[in-house]
Amino acid sequence: MKQYLKLDEWKIIEDKFNPEFNEITESIFSLGNGRMGQRGSFEETYTGKTLQGNYVAGVYYPDKTRVGWWKNGYPEYFAKVLNAANWNGLEITIDGELVDLHTSTINSFYRELNMKEGFILRQCDITLASGKSISIESIRLNSMADDESGVISYQIIPLNFSATISIKAFVDGDIKNKDSNYDEKFWDEVKVGASDHTSFVWSKTKKTGFEVFTGQKIELAVNGQKQAINAKTETKEKYSSLSYLVPTAQGEKLSITKFAVNLSSENHPAATLESRGIDYLNRICTKGFDTMKKEQAEAWEAKWAINDVIIKGDVSAQQGIRFNIFQLNQTYTGADDRLNIGPKGFTGEKYGGSTYWDTEAYCIPFYLATAPQNVSKNLLIYRWKQLDRAIENAGKLGFNQGAALYPMVTMNGEECHNEWEITFEEIHRNGAIAYAIKDYVDYTNDRKHLVDYGWEVLIGISRFWAQRVNWSENQQKYVMLGVTGPNEYENNVNNNWYTNYFAVWCLKYTLAVLQEIKSNFPEAAQEKLAKTNFRHEEIAQFEHIIQNMYFPRNEQKGIFLQQDGFLDKVIAPVDAIPSGQRPINQNWSWDRILRSCYIKQADVLQGMYFFETDFSKEEIERNYNFYEPLTVHESSLSPCVHNILAAKLGKEDKSYEFYTRAARLDLDDYNNDTEDGCHITSMAGTWMSIVKGFGGMMLVNNQLSFNPFLPSQWEEYAFKINFRSNQLAIRILNKGVEITNLSANPITLMVKGSSYTIPGESTKVI
Amino acid sequence: MKQYLKLDEWKIIEDKFNPEFNEITESIFSLGNGRMGQRGSFEETYTGKTLQGNYVAGVYYPDKTRVGWWKNGYPEYFAKVLNAANWNGLEITIDGELVDLHTSTINSFYRELNMKEGFILRQCDITLASGKSISIESIRLNSMADDESGVISYQIIPLNFSATISIKAFVDGDIKNKDSNYDEKFWDEVKVGASDHTSFVWSKTKKTGFEVFTGQKIELAVNGQKQAINAKTETKEKYSSLSYLVPTAQGEKLSITKFAVNLSSENHPAATLESRGIDYLNRICTKGFDTMKKEQAEAWEAKWAINDVIIKGDVSAQQGIRFNIFQLNQTYTGADDRLNIGPKGFTGEKYGGSTYWDTEAYCIPFYLATAPQNVSKNLLIYRWKQLDRAIENAGKLGFNQGAALYPMVTMNGEECHNEWEITFEEIHRNGAIAYAIKDYVDYTNDRKHLVDYGWEVLIGISRFWAQRVNWSENQQKYVMLGVTGPNEYENNVNNNWYTNYFAVWCLKYTLAVLQEIKSNFPEAAQEKLAKTNFRHEEIAQFEHIIQNMYFPRNEQKGIFLQQDGFLDKVIAPVDAIPSGQRPINQNWSWDRILRSCYIKQADVLQGMYFFETDFSKEEIERNYNFYEPLTVHESSLSPCVHNILAAKLGKEDKSYEFYTRAARLDLDDYNNDTEDGCHITSMAGTWMSIVKGFGGMMLVNNQLSFNPFLPSQWEEYAFKINFRSNQLAIRILNKGVEITNLSANPITLMVKGSSYTIPGESTKVI
Repeated sequence: MKQYLKLDEWKIIEDKFNPEFNEITESIFSLGNGRMGQRGSFEETYTGKTLQGNYVAGVYYPDKTRVGWWKNGYPEYFAKVLNAANWNGLEITIDGELVDLHTSTINSFYRELNMKEGFILRQCDITLASGKSISIESIRLNSMADDESGVISYQIIPLNFSATISIKAFVDGDIKNKDSNYDEKFWDEVKVGASDHTSFVWSKTKKTGFEVFTGQKIELAVNGQKQAINAKTETKEKYSSLSYLVPTAQGEKLSITKFAVNLSSENHPAATLESRGIDYLNRICTKGFDTMKKEQAEAWEAKWAINDVIIKGDVSAQQGIRFNIFQLNQTYTGADDRLNIGPKGFTGEKYGGSTYWDTEAYCIPFYLATAPQNVSKNLLIYRWKQLDRAIENAGKLGFNQGAALYPMVTMNGEECHNEWEITFEEIHRNGAIAYAIKDYVDYTNDRKHLVDYGWEVLIGISRFWAQRVNWSENQQKYVMLGVTGPNEYENNVNNNWYTNYFAVWCLKYTLAVLQEIKSNFPEAAQEKLAKTNFRHEEIAQFEHIIQNMYFPRNEQKGIFLQQDGFLDKVIAPVDAIPSGQRPINQNWSWDRILRSCYIKQADVLQGMYFFETDFSKEEIERNYNFYEPLTVHESSLSPCVHNILAAKLGKEDKSYEFYTRAARLDLDDYNNDTEDGCHITSMAGTWMSIVKGFGGMMLVNNQLSFNPFLPSQWEEYAFKINFRSNQLAIRILNKGVEITNLSANPITLMVKGSSYTIPGESTKVI
Repeated sequence: MKQYLKLDEWKIIEDKFNPEFNEITESIFSLGNGRMGQRGSFEETYTGKTLQGNYVAGVYYPDKTRVGWWKNGYPEYFAKVLNAANWNGLEITIDGELVDLHTSTINSFYRELNMKEGFILRQCDITLASGKSISIESIRLNSMADDESGVISYQIIPLNFSATISIKAFVDGDIKNKDSNYDEKFWDEVKVGASDHTSFVWSKTKKTGFEVFTGQKIELAVNGQKQAINAKTETKEKYSSLSYLVPTAQGEKLSITKFAVNLSSENHPAATLESRGIDYLNRICTKGFDTMKKEQAEAWEAKWAINDVIIKGDVSAQQGIRFNIFQLNQTYTGADDRLNIGPKGFTGEKYGGSTYWDTEAYCIPFYLATAPQNVSKNLLIYRWKQLDRAIENAGKLGFNQGAALYPMVTMNGEECHNEWEITFEEIHRNGAIAYAIKDYVDYTNDRKHLVDYGWEVLIGISRFWAQRVNWSENQQKYVMLGVTGPNEYENNVNNNWYTNYFAVWCLKYTLAVLQEIKSNFPEAAQEKLAKTNFRHEEIAQFEHIIQNMYFPRNEQKGIFLQQDGFLDKVIAPVDAIPSGQRPINQNWSWDRILRSCYIKQADVLQGMYFFETDFSKEEIERNYNFYEPLTVHESSLSPCVHNILAAKLGKEDKSYEFYTRAARLDLDDYNNDTEDGCHITSMAGTWMSIVKGFGGMMLVNNQLSFNPFLPSQWEEYAFKINFRSNQLAIRILNKGVEITNLSANPITLMVKGSSYTIPGESTKVI
């Protein structure tokens, strides 16, 4: 755990340069606007530890699979979000000496990620090796208002000298992914150009042929006076630059404003990229830095108006939740149904930037409650569009007749992952994708979605389960062999309770949806049943499985078993692991982890989280008390689910501990891996920790209910949510709950078991 | 299945060129002498399908591991036998036209692998594109008498023209492994040279620094008259050649004799390689081709005198077994205890050419019975020398106090394999390594081996098992979780019966050996007990496990279960697999294979083969009848073990079918993979099929017994074996068994349940 960043309610602050943590800070200070994003690296040359990362949403490369031993059915490639052209670049030279913090003496240093207004700011005074001292201030943002652009305001003041300062502003497209499987570069040049104050690199991805135009436009001023200095232009392969010589006297402020754009062929005809890119640059340049910064603050103000969670009395918790919400909103805005939420967002390359089940299990609840309805809907349509690929994917594994297995990792619907125990066996992901449909429809009441999109996905998923189980003559039950549950520290197990339970739930829900769409949308339903070749016998088949599924349990302990053989393991709490051997995934061989009782992330408990109302509180508590002490929480997805259950079980200390761990995972680098990027998808889990955990939010009998409690560390907390187009502001106080209905429509809520009808636009303190 | 090769008792014959099968033929026609070997490629240029492969025993390269997802404990590299300098090369040009069978019309073609005398012969008449016709005859051998050399006699007759024939004889060291993980070359040049009639390439492996000197010396003759023509010499990187222009009239026979040597720094000081190599070349050249060929025939005559298996009335079976015995003797002679038996020998690169459990489970019985005692002993000492590495290997997986886990694949004792389900979990290999000690000691009566070498290995292995099992509170038994048995079509299973049974056997045997060495070699035993830090409490620990181990079984079916969950699978015979879906490993995704009931190779039955006397015939038959119909035999190690059991159970048709499949696996390319090389280690299983299967050979109560039967296809069969320095010739006739005791000592045998004492040097017909 590292705690070098300062606490602040709205900012992440580093008030002293920590070069050893620079890659962590770069991850945390990442900027994005849903369309493009980048790590928080310095603009000027930095020869210390750094990972330049610039990303353009939806642009990927199918990197040839690397595998030790090929298994039938493995995908040919892993789709990777590409590290793209770097548009930050400023090379600053003073009398032949390069400005580089790594080789300078740093007299003062301050940087902040301003979450309220959406920019990063850096101020520092440094002394170069020659003894020349300068002051630097830079502000950078990725514009929410103009989401294919960013801007940098960069200022230098010579403190103890006068000189002609040389500035080379460049765009560098000669970029290699850190995680290239075969050490290849993924970009080809289409064109480079530089003239006057504008230059660009126009690149094209190998194989996939995505084209991206990255351009810059430069303005210079000294002491606020625009300078009309000619640029020396330079182009070379995948690179263009503009160089200026600016005479600057001691104490004068040299300002460089760098406007940048990233236009992709996903959003523009490729042939127009250059002309549109230049136009875009001219437009934002005319607008100017101050206007762009003001628009950015307004855009974030609008976001925070509905997204903010306010925690009083606990700055650390406040900063944590805001950081999570900020990054989620930077990563995905819901504007484009081709996009999804990569596990690292725009903060790093790891995990390929593709779509995981995290989206459905963790992110949808967040976007449902905090963003317009179409944001979640777009995420569902993303999967609906990829249904054919999911059916193909299942076909590769021997399933047929419309059975669909959604991929573990994907960019365009094809499976990308290549570990048999995950790719072929971590099939519970199908459950979360079905669950998200119910989640969305119940939450929004957009029931027509079921017939328009939901049915096709549900019947595909249910067919998969119906074929994936097999009848055990031995047990006289259906069993499910050879799966990996959410706890990836057990592989290829039989009858993972979570997966079996989810499979049966999918079958039940599919049959329920069948009834509903036949009743409510008879015509559309007939069309969809025909389209999906639905056969009436499938009802009986599903029902037979529902009635006869096997669930591993232990009566004596009153618990469900994570899998058939769980109790043959040596059961000892996590505390029994010798010190220095954690995290176990960095210290133990894989077989040792697998046969241990230690759990990476919620598994049986993940099921109890999803299906809370199916179980008594005592049942949940028995399972929680058995499994949580065996859980090492080595997945970022783990603490938040445990937080929710712990909060609901009234385990205040534990739930607060989990909350802190979830909320400050990256800020405090709990898992020692933030330098690879932030854990974006699990950030939605942090939000759930507050709203579903402490807030006790649930949807019961089609009605929203709250059973909140206030951790003793907090004076109060508050959040807003959307529910069926109504907006509620919820404030939890030690003396009760205050719910403001911000909509015109009256709304009925359950709070701590009692029902209240709140008129529109009114406040009720309960 | 391909049947393009002709049947012959002593030869493998291709009487028509089959270019589409050329890589298969190259594998089958491979030559070797234990020290070096090569695939049976053509000497002259061939632009068709070919894999040049030349190998030098013990010379390997640690190729950096390639893996999709790294798991803790994986090895850093995979040791690969290296494709080394090609010394066959002859580039023949006639009036500027290259001789190349691929671009010529083939008028006649014949080649044979002469197993009786150990060479390959090729005769062909071809017409070049220009219309020039030539006759070619080549004979090539890798000398058994001078085991660092080979020789080629290559003859050309111009049939319809006279010309000056240009011959470029070369050594090419610029060789790349087909299976290089990162497309790298593994050899550096030390020196190349060419002068007079001698040239060489002296290379050095990257990283490992093995040096190999590969040299050639050329003699020319026309119509038997030596020609004193000057060579034009050429050297370039990793390459040297000698070029000659030889005027040859129509009908004259131009003879090129190419002497070659391969000297390695494993056997000579590196600094002496060049001088010794040149001396070696001069020596064999003085000896001459005819003498070398005669010595080769004599060496093989001596081998066959003890190795031969004679089958009368079934040429196909006869050819098959001789091919297997021939290849085994080419691959490993037992002369060097640093060497072992790679699964492809000198016939290809696949599987890295390293040591697998095949050596102990399949090869040791063959070498025990057919080679001097020290050959098997050397194979045991090889593992004993690697014990420290096995202890380190176990340490990486969390075991301690001298627990040893031998690697799945190794060259120098370090683990090379990198699939967690194999590397970390296919731990039954430890059992076979212990079993080989018992096999060797009982067979040879070299009981002192137990204290000299055996104990240290056995206690290491037993300590591993004692730590690897765990006490299940649930079962009140010891269980073994997370293993892969010999059937690699189940991974990470609990309580694989074979592994559990073998573990307990190891513990029992270790305790028995402890008693024996304490009684018989008290002084040496004390020293070894101290060396291994043996603690008296270990006896009680081992005994507790022996008494309380859990074995999965089904009482109703009267069978042992391959693993805990086996009967939850859908059980259907192999015949139920839809046609076109076999082999399943090329048609089914891995998860589908894993949850199917289909078995790659003997698992429970492998245990019954090893421990036959522990079970009643009925027990073996019940398990055979249950498991064999579920077995797809997709490992070359499978048919022979099933053959042995089927023969002992009197299942004549099945056993004959398995024999044929085992014996002709490569000749008929059953598994469609002989082009990668031959299945060398399973060839020993073919020999066991006859001697242990049809011959019914077993060691019971320390006495050798035979319960032979004659497949109805055979008139008779015969083989010789060594047993405790005595040699027995066994001939099975339809009217009985004829056993000749070739030793001076009388020997007592059990034949079909009756005991006979056969005086020395006598024949007894039973």
